[in-house]
Amino acid sequence: MTFDYAARRARLAESLPGHGVRALLVTSPVNVRYLTGLASSNAAVLVNADGTARLATDNRYIGAARELDLPVVEAGDVAAALLASGPGDGPGDKVGIEAAAMSVATYLRLGEGLVPLEQAVERLRAVKDEQELDLIRTACAITDQAFADVTPRIVPGMTERELARLLERRMAELGADKPAFDTIVAAGENGAIPHHSPTDRELRAGDLVTMDFGARYHGYHADMTRTVSLGPPAGWQRELYDLVADAQRAGRHALAPGAGAREVDAAARSVVERAGHGEHFRHGLGHGVGLEIHEEPFLGPSRTGKLEDRVPITVEPGVYLPGRGGVRIEDTLVTREGGPELFTKTTKELLVL
Amino acid sequence: MTFDYAARRARLAESLPGHGVRALLVTSPVNVRYLTGLASSNAAVLVNADGTARLATDNRYIGAARELDLPVVEAGDVAAALLASGPGDGPGDKVGIEAAAMSVATYLRLGEGLVPLEQAVERLRAVKDEQELDLIRTACAITDQAFADVTPRIVPGMTERELARLLERRMAELGADKPAFDTIVAAGENGAIPHHSPTDRELRAGDLVTMDFGARYHGYHADMTRTVSLGPPAGWQRELYDLVADAQRAGRHALAPGAGAREVDAAARSVVERAGHGEHFRHGLGHGVGLEIHEEPFLGPSRTGKLEDRVPITVEPGVYLPGRGGVRIEDTLVTREGGPELFTKTTKELLVL
Repeated sequence: MTFDYAARRARLAESLPGHGVRALLVTSPVNVRYLTGLASSNAAVLVNADGTARLATDNRYIGAARELDLPVVEAGDVAAALLASGPGDGPGDKVGIEAAAMSVATYLRLGEGLVPLEQAVERLRAVKDEQELDLIRTACAITDQAFADVTPRIVPGMTERELARLLERRMAELGADKPAFDTIVAAGENGAIPHHSPTDRELRAGDLVTMDFGARYHGYHADMTRTVSLGPPAGWQRELYDLVADAQRAGRHALAPGAGAREVDAAARSVVERAGHGEHFRHGLGHGVGLEIHEEPFLGPSRTGKLEDRVPITVEPGVYLPGRGGVRIEDTLVTREGGPELFTKTTKELLVL
Repeated sequence: MTFDYAARRARLAESLPGHGVRALLVTSPVNVRYLTGLASSNAAVLVNADGTARLATDNRYIGAARELDLPVVEAGDVAAALLASGPGDGPGDKVGIEAAAMSVATYLRLGEGLVPLEQAVERLRAVKDEQELDLIRTACAITDQAFADVTPRIVPGMTERELARLLERRMAELGADKPAFDTIVAAGENGAIPHHSPTDRELRAGDLVTMDFGARYHGYHADMTRTVSLGPPAGWQRELYDLVADAQRAGRHALAPGAGAREVDAAARSVVERAGHGEHFRHGLGHGVGLEIHEEPFLGPSRTGKLEDRVPITVEPGVYLPGRGGVRIEDTLVTREGGPELFTKTTKELLVL
């Protein structure tokens, strides 16, 4: 899988004068991968405003780096090596660094004069090209298929952990690189914990069971949540489910190029609030997905900015009743001018198993 | 699985005056987990020299945090919340931060007066208690068993990727949380790339095939590498294998409490160098394992410090011949007064499949 990395670097280079720097030292591993194709735990790329760039990595990855389309430096201290070797240095020339990715230790070691920048590359990454969307679409199709294949095997007596492993194994068999993140399976009262880690608790008739999982495919992530009912749901469970499904639909329908991150969140959240459950929906509505499972942009009450076209993003309201249980319904979609394209196609009807 | 977190915090508290601070703001997720038991992507703990401590996390993890044995603050900006609420503040009191874990963005946001420290918690984590060693021993046993179960299924025509997925799936079936890291399978000429990612290259008769993989069990990691031969090995392959096996044995035998990180590396490296392959062994000999797959201490030519007792560590020399192939042999062991205990027990005879 190869992309037009030079074009990505050119877009970044164009943006640098606006950040007040003549170059950006990119050290976030996922951003290095995005700009060069190199997947390495120790690499950096210096992108200059004139469009030139230089990559540094250590001897473990240098062979792979030399196959790429830009000059390469072999070094253990990749950041220092690039700052020492970069072309175009001069008095008064400012070099930006990635403030969220660089550690304090590295920053203090590199010395004075660096300009901490926020999200220079992340903002570019938010908008995907069709090749990237194909990979996310495939990751979501694997996720859907794993859910379809595993659902008939969900029975009382199996544990949260066993169900999580079944989903992960099926995704691997279907071609996933690996799970996009640690699978969440939360049964009964555990469903009230948004980020519950699967335990040996057994599933029981009468449980709502929330599964939040996804496949990674060629580095790109899928994210889907479904809540199912083991046996016929009680009245409160059905009501909760319908409420979250309504909120999720409202959120999806609000997704559009130009929509505000706060407004999309509010479209779903207001449904939950009108039902008196505002305090039980305490996380943001969604997040971008791509080379990271959580990336720009984020949807939430205090988020700013507007969505662009071709931004893959999740819509995942949840209502969590402490001690009782919860419901979350999540899709991965992509913004389109004509309305969002749904990537995760599993039904959102309440499945009664 | 629960540990004596208060005792861990007490050991850290005792070390703080030596670092010149009255408290340490711990923000590395794995260090927070080590000191409190909370596994969270957004949490921090402030440990004071007087032994008191306070934990902060956001609403997604607050329920789990409240079950723990220390005071908890709910906040989105966990570092700022702890600095604002910490007991014992006073003029001239210095608070340390984790320089390797904290981002420049957070550091600049928190303001003046923080003291960047290196490895305050990591050094404590290097020495394990017997409960931790039990978990690593189990992770290694799962790894051994997966290798034993998958080896008979290795045949010409299967791809590197398929073999990697088989190993990972078998570890999951045997009870692993998940793979300890992205499995490496490198066949033939790909064996010359130490950190090769599995591809669709098919295994062929005449290949050496290197598998570097491990299980994670209750958060603790195993790490093992074996190189096998598909069909009878050529003379150079057998020679290379025997050389690496000799070097690996020398490295294992040098492991002892009190041994220097550089000396252990040299014990193995000198074997490779005497055979004229020094330039083909270009990474360190090994690394600690525990809650992280790579953690303190590290073995290498420029590493300092001495090993202590009860330090789980890998010994993994490799020789890589560009364009031809390579061999790496790796065990996870733990230092003991009476000689190291071997955790990965798979044979190191060259397996001819």
